[in-house]
Amino acid sequence: MSASLPRVAIVGATGAVGTELIACLQQRRFAVRDLKLFASERSSGKRLAFAGQSLPVQPLAEDAFNGVDIALFSAGATRSRRYAPLAVRAGATVIDNSSAFRMDSAVPLVVPEVNPDRIAENRGIIANPNCVAIIAVVALWPLHRQFGIRRVIAATYQAASGAGAAAMEELRDATRASLAGERFEPRVLQHPYAFNLFSHDTAVDAVTGSNEEETKVGRELRKIMCAPELRVSITCIRVPVLRAHAIALNVEFEREVSPEAAREQLRAAEGVRIVDHVERNHFPMPLEASGQGDVLVGRIRRDSSDPSGHSLSLFVAGDQLLKGAALNAVQIAERLPPSGIAPR
Amino acid sequence: MSASLPRVAIVGATGAVGTELIACLQQRRFAVRDLKLFASERSSGKRLAFAGQSLPVQPLAEDAFNGVDIALFSAGATRSRRYAPLAVRAGATVIDNSSAFRMDSAVPLVVPEVNPDRIAENRGIIANPNCVAIIAVVALWPLHRQFGIRRVIAATYQAASGAGAAAMEELRDATRASLAGERFEPRVLQHPYAFNLFSHDTAVDAVTGSNEEETKVGRELRKIMCAPELRVSITCIRVPVLRAHAIALNVEFEREVSPEAAREQLRAAEGVRIVDHVERNHFPMPLEASGQGDVLVGRIRRDSSDPSGHSLSLFVAGDQLLKGAALNAVQIAERLPPSGIAPR
Repeated sequence: MSASLPRVAIVGATGAVGTELIACLQQRRFAVRDLKLFASERSSGKRLAFAGQSLPVQPLAEDAFNGVDIALFSAGATRSRRYAPLAVRAGATVIDNSSAFRMDSAVPLVVPEVNPDRIAENRGIIANPNCVAIIAVVALWPLHRQFGIRRVIAATYQAASGAGAAAMEELRDATRASLAGERFEPRVLQHPYAFNLFSHDTAVDAVTGSNEEETKVGRELRKIMCAPELRVSITCIRVPVLRAHAIALNVEFEREVSPEAAREQLRAAEGVRIVDHVERNHFPMPLEASGQGDVLVGRIRRDSSDPSGHSLSLFVAGDQLLKGAALNAVQIAERLPPSGIAPR
Repeated sequence: MSASLPRVAIVGATGAVGTELIACLQQRRFAVRDLKLFASERSSGKRLAFAGQSLPVQPLAEDAFNGVDIALFSAGATRSRRYAPLAVRAGATVIDNSSAFRMDSAVPLVVPEVNPDRIAENRGIIANPNCVAIIAVVALWPLHRQFGIRRVIAATYQAASGAGAAAMEELRDATRASLAGERFEPRVLQHPYAFNLFSHDTAVDAVTGSNEEETKVGRELRKIMCAPELRVSITCIRVPVLRAHAIALNVEFEREVSPEAAREQLRAAEGVRIVDHVERNHFPMPLEASGQGDVLVGRIRRDSSDPSGHSLSLFVAGDQLLKGAALNAVQIAERLPPSGIAPR
């Protein structure tokens, strides 16, 4: 392959997102000089398929990034904090899927449909936002750009995949046990998952009452849309769904907005597919969002509780592993300058 | 048994709610002179256990209510419209779980924790509200009474049971098939249910964009709380949970309300159990609400999107078949005058 093609590394290659990163690179024919796969000791020795080759999974080491142009990190905030600066020092541009650097003012937080121009401002690290923030912002941005959003009230329906591959397996195993009338002891999540739902498993702040997920989504939406005044209230709930998140959104605008005007903006928006078939009762569903790059948007209607006509309600669904994580990261990588080296 | 005890009939005795009506009467030691069980032709010939007896399930007929004091209906709006007036004419007081009479100004719509005084105003029919409306209002009423609610924005997580016993079976069967990698053709619900969720299966109004369930909840909340000015925006979603509904509630009050003040009202409220253990991340869950008469309330916190301090967020869960249907009906029956005959 050409020497001008980037050398890419994936950190967390065997995880739920890592697996999708490899798949996205292949499906989108992202041309690489070579691909290095890193994971925890537990996975080393494994081999994964990429572009007709079988690549070894290596344990992460301090010198792992020598010669790497683009490093896609998806191995948790602790590993990102330790290894991402090493990757940058070795000359790589890091696209980090963890929360480690998202709110760092020197780090662009990018959803390519929203703020692609920020990519060029990176000083070595570009942060991939929280999955709920990405899925919500793909639907909110075309509306914010046109009408100005003042306030968002959201309730999420979050899939197991957001807690990783082990949580997806736990949902399947717990459900299988429940159907068989057998006992099942949760291993990954704190609460029984079969035919059940629960408040997001991150810690709740004793003062604000928000959990970490909710806090992340609010501040990330503000940063991505460059909307510091945006007010966000969100309730994050984990539901027994495998890999796509849904969100009920109630949106208040600076002025009166009709559902038709909103629909027109959304229809023209990149990354959005309108699924709003009233006559067939067919609206965004996680099962149909799964495996799709687009965010599905429907139930677009006036908010019946706001007589001023400034508010709309909508319901969205997006693949947590794709647009909510791996796909968004690869879309960022696609926009990096040749060799992945952004100007420093 | 004493001649002064009421003679009770259950219409729809073999359905998901009917089964729970029988169980509630027994568990609450509701004393009856006798119990008649009615269901569709399909179920006639069946026998169901009640208080140590085995009772026949009979097909519904026009003269079915002769001698009946209290008729508990849960067989859909069409049957209620046809048979409830016949039951009233025969001298029975009807407690109707369908939507047929709920918005009739001559029919009390009752949740005993909220408006028990309306029971005495009945002219033969008392309506049992929609399950989401009941579960929400048990949590909202103590707050409305004390602080005055102006606006509610809600997103629901509704269980299969709301669509009947066949939908619960479909959820189990579809999930079993999904886990086995087999195809499953939906029979009861319109969309695939295994590890999926979808907008509520009632028709969406082309003008308002609300589905029938959403419209019902708004108008029933206003009627039950006698709050004609209350503004409600709700998104009703069916989730793969068996028998308890959850609701994310965002509540705007007429004045500033602290989470502590709200908690104090809720702690003293009938029918409410606060489950709000921040340190253990333990909040209302459908699995824990199932089989419980109380509505679980937690995640009580300031709405971070309302700087005026007038808004709170909370998350509730309640058993759709019990407090959302059968239990509420039996609690109404318990408050009827002796022999079930209300003054006409």
